[in-house]
Amino acid sequence: MAKQAKTAITPTRDENYPEWYQQVAREAELAEASPVRGCMVIKPWGYALWENMQRALDRMFKDTGHRNAYFPLFIPKSFLEKEAEHVEGFAKECAVVTHHRLVAGPGGRLIPDPTAELEEPLIVRPTSETIIGAMYSKWVQSYRDLPILINQWANVVRWELRTRLFLRTAEFLWQEGHTAHATEAQAREETTKMLGVYKEFAENWMAMPVYTGRKTEAERFPGAVETYCIEAMMQDRKALQAGTSHFLGQNFARASDIKFLDENGKLEHAWTTSWGVSTRLIGGLIMTHSDDDGLVLPPKLAPAHVVIMPITFKADDPQAVVNYCRSIKDELGKQMFAGRPIEVEIDDRDLRGGDKVWSWVKKGVPIRLEVGPRDMADDAVFMARRDQSPRDKQAVPRQRFIETCVDILGQMQNNLLERARAFRAQHTRVIESKDEFEAFFTPPSGGKGNGNDEGPTPIHGGFALAHYNGDPALEDRLARDLGVTVRCIPDDGAEEAGGPGRCIFTGEPSAKRMIWAKSY
Amino acid sequence: MAKQAKTAITPTRDENYPEWYQQVAREAELAEASPVRGCMVIKPWGYALWENMQRALDRMFKDTGHRNAYFPLFIPKSFLEKEAEHVEGFAKECAVVTHHRLVAGPGGRLIPDPTAELEEPLIVRPTSETIIGAMYSKWVQSYRDLPILINQWANVVRWELRTRLFLRTAEFLWQEGHTAHATEAQAREETTKMLGVYKEFAENWMAMPVYTGRKTEAERFPGAVETYCIEAMMQDRKALQAGTSHFLGQNFARASDIKFLDENGKLEHAWTTSWGVSTRLIGGLIMTHSDDDGLVLPPKLAPAHVVIMPITFKADDPQAVVNYCRSIKDELGKQMFAGRPIEVEIDDRDLRGGDKVWSWVKKGVPIRLEVGPRDMADDAVFMARRDQSPRDKQAVPRQRFIETCVDILGQMQNNLLERARAFRAQHTRVIESKDEFEAFFTPPSGGKGNGNDEGPTPIHGGFALAHYNGDPALEDRLARDLGVTVRCIPDDGAEEAGGPGRCIFTGEPSAKRMIWAKSY
Repeated sequence: MAKQAKTAITPTRDENYPEWYQQVAREAELAEASPVRGCMVIKPWGYALWENMQRALDRMFKDTGHRNAYFPLFIPKSFLEKEAEHVEGFAKECAVVTHHRLVAGPGGRLIPDPTAELEEPLIVRPTSETIIGAMYSKWVQSYRDLPILINQWANVVRWELRTRLFLRTAEFLWQEGHTAHATEAQAREETTKMLGVYKEFAENWMAMPVYTGRKTEAERFPGAVETYCIEAMMQDRKALQAGTSHFLGQNFARASDIKFLDENGKLEHAWTTSWGVSTRLIGGLIMTHSDDDGLVLPPKLAPAHVVIMPITFKADDPQAVVNYCRSIKDELGKQMFAGRPIEVEIDDRDLRGGDKVWSWVKKGVPIRLEVGPRDMADDAVFMARRDQSPRDKQAVPRQRFIETCVDILGQMQNNLLERARAFRAQHTRVIESKDEFEAFFTPPSGGKGNGNDEGPTPIHGGFALAHYNGDPALEDRLARDLGVTVRCIPDDGAEEAGGPGRCIFTGEPSAKRMIWAKSY
Repeated sequence: MAKQAKTAITPTRDENYPEWYQQVAREAELAEASPVRGCMVIKPWGYALWENMQRALDRMFKDTGHRNAYFPLFIPKSFLEKEAEHVEGFAKECAVVTHHRLVAGPGGRLIPDPTAELEEPLIVRPTSETIIGAMYSKWVQSYRDLPILINQWANVVRWELRTRLFLRTAEFLWQEGHTAHATEAQAREETTKMLGVYKEFAENWMAMPVYTGRKTEAERFPGAVETYCIEAMMQDRKALQAGTSHFLGQNFARASDIKFLDENGKLEHAWTTSWGVSTRLIGGLIMTHSDDDGLVLPPKLAPAHVVIMPITFKADDPQAVVNYCRSIKDELGKQMFAGRPIEVEIDDRDLRGGDKVWSWVKKGVPIRLEVGPRDMADDAVFMARRDQSPRDKQAVPRQRFIETCVDILGQMQNNLLERARAFRAQHTRVIESKDEFEAFFTPPSGGKGNGNDEGPTPIHGGFALAHYNGDPALEDRLARDLGVTVRCIPDDGAEEAGGPGRCIFTGEPSAKRMIWAKSY
């Protein structure tokens, strides 16, 4: 057999990207499928990652004046009938509660009690605009009651046929901000501000570079006037919509009857926004950084920064080695990194050394220390970094490691962001002609690459910046033929978008280039 | 009219205790009813209180080796059919999902799509033993996989006919710990340990004294071998079950097929526990400390420790007063109390001074400062404490206030606990005869006091410590006739329970006194 570097994850990204993703999530023990169709179990390692994301986001929400609250899980069916466009987009695939009791049926099985049918079915919230709107309409009387700046951390349910861990599940965890304002300008400012918060979180905490921009009509949130988004490039060069911020105008205020007396005593509808990110971010994190050996965690969000594996089987005094490891843990725990003490796991499980090391490689812990009697004698540690090859290990004096650990973590965080930026730059292209556009998005094998082919489509394409006349029918056709959509009309910040030009498909005028890509 | 001290809450506790409770919760803006039957909206002030509770509890769970995870909201109906006793207790009043789509029906209304009926209905979790058990049965193979120590923060739904904010709602928020162990002794130790965590949290954080003990069969969790609880006395002298810890033996492991190979290679069922507290704790907190002027918050859990109200209407330089207030806030914010920086709100709303002060009294903020130009000139603050009369205010030099604020908060925390302990002691009685027992629990008006009377029942009774032969039929009769139940068989720690004696109803032997009370 040919000599080949083995990888901890089979298949590799190149061999079968979708399957690689599932295996990374599984081997890292982030989550797994449950017996409930489309619903996942988030395991402790995955949930700790989510908790760290929540903590950072929550701080940013509070620093921008928001407070958390909690609204009911259920939405009366009639609420969903109020906003026509919203119904069209959301009311269809959802979990419908029709009964409030089970009784013993034939053969001792339980059946929904026919005498306990609800007068009005309840929908498990797919999003909470309508129920929160109903409360705001009670809370808002005057301009003095505005703005209302509330966020909710919650579970939501959207019945999905095809599900994938974190990326698309029937139930998922998220936060949804819902704000109401006295003026259009304030609501627009809020929409933009929270988009900025998401961008900062994605880049500064997740080390995941994102473009920000506006959605075209086809991809807009049902009922919104404008939907803004952050879009990230995954390692299969597809786009992941990682967060959205909606300017809802007065649409939902009209549907929910949120009215206030303005400073001149005139009755007006409020201007509302909503914005959200979800456990989908974990999918984005996995696909931005992980490699063929498994998960790679940005240190700022890692559930543990350092794992120490005492190697005691050859030790005359195994307990001395364990104590040496504990003293390192204690000293590291006194230092802060990204707002929390350095978190250290000591893994003294009774496992083969190799299995143990690889389990932590696959879990993505930033720094691994192997510490045996000889390291202890040398007052050193044997260190490996997750952003380097699993086989690159180096002896480092104990004290120097303790003194530089925060710096190393900071460097790793930066490295991950820079690496992801470089990857994105490499696969982002300004495209000036229809032929070039089609070639860019056609997989090497010549298939359509729209996900309907048998077997995995080879990785190809990327982000195309191209002028376009804005015709929805054209966008729809490209989605059908090439599986490509406008991910966003980028903000002025995106230099590559440039100024006005000509649509590459029709030659008609275009205000700026848009970002096109295949997407999740 | 006779001169009478006005109270901020109408009615007072003595006038109508249940209505007083609703008004306290409402005026403090903790929560309110929603348009969804039985479901509440937890408003920002109430949710911030819950977040503080979560933070303290979560720390204690993690310090005892637990990790958080997340399991599906839905439970397949068949799972509930597995544990017979559990079904009996839980499967009845619940939200049943039967369809996964809405479609346009007659008249453009939405109806559950008849073609999208689920093959197997899903139940919105009333508690997660069965779905978590199904996962544990996959995760556990060998004794090396044990113990599993997992907690979940989640929403649960139990269809309730009569609901009251926090105390009993169709949907509520809680945490549920679920652990699996290799031996009975370890599972029993876990059950006891978590009961101890709850007691410590109730007393040390909520300043709510509790008795710990074991439930009689009538009050046991369906399917459990033993249910342990913490029981607190509310100001209407009724008991509130504020947390439970269940030793489940091997019952749920058998139902869920959680088996492992022990150290001798023998296949055994695991021993499991579960334990939980919920937003009901907020109801307990309200009813332990609040008075006729509204909510009183234990400082360790208060969303804000201090509110500063700048009095600027007579100031030559209003901004100077506001800046003076901000400087106080900044200095307080550098100090830690109970693990977080002192949190200060500056209330510069355009409201009448009196309304503003009373709004914070009703919200229960521990310390209120009113600061006008004269206070500033004196380098002082005008301070009021929520554990004293709203009219007791004193000028305190600014620097002294800043230096003593942490001490004052600590004193207030202690005062609340001591006051609650004294109240409980005052209304706890060792009862030696049936007649005395009946008299103790009979309201002054002579009614049955079982909640079925018209109008509020006068406050009466308390905790009775009485010997009892343990006969379930007798307990059932007392519940029916007097509305009184055994709240718990107290731990050895409760001195008042004493040693063996004779049942006060039958003269038969009794191992120790039990705690009897009316309850929520």
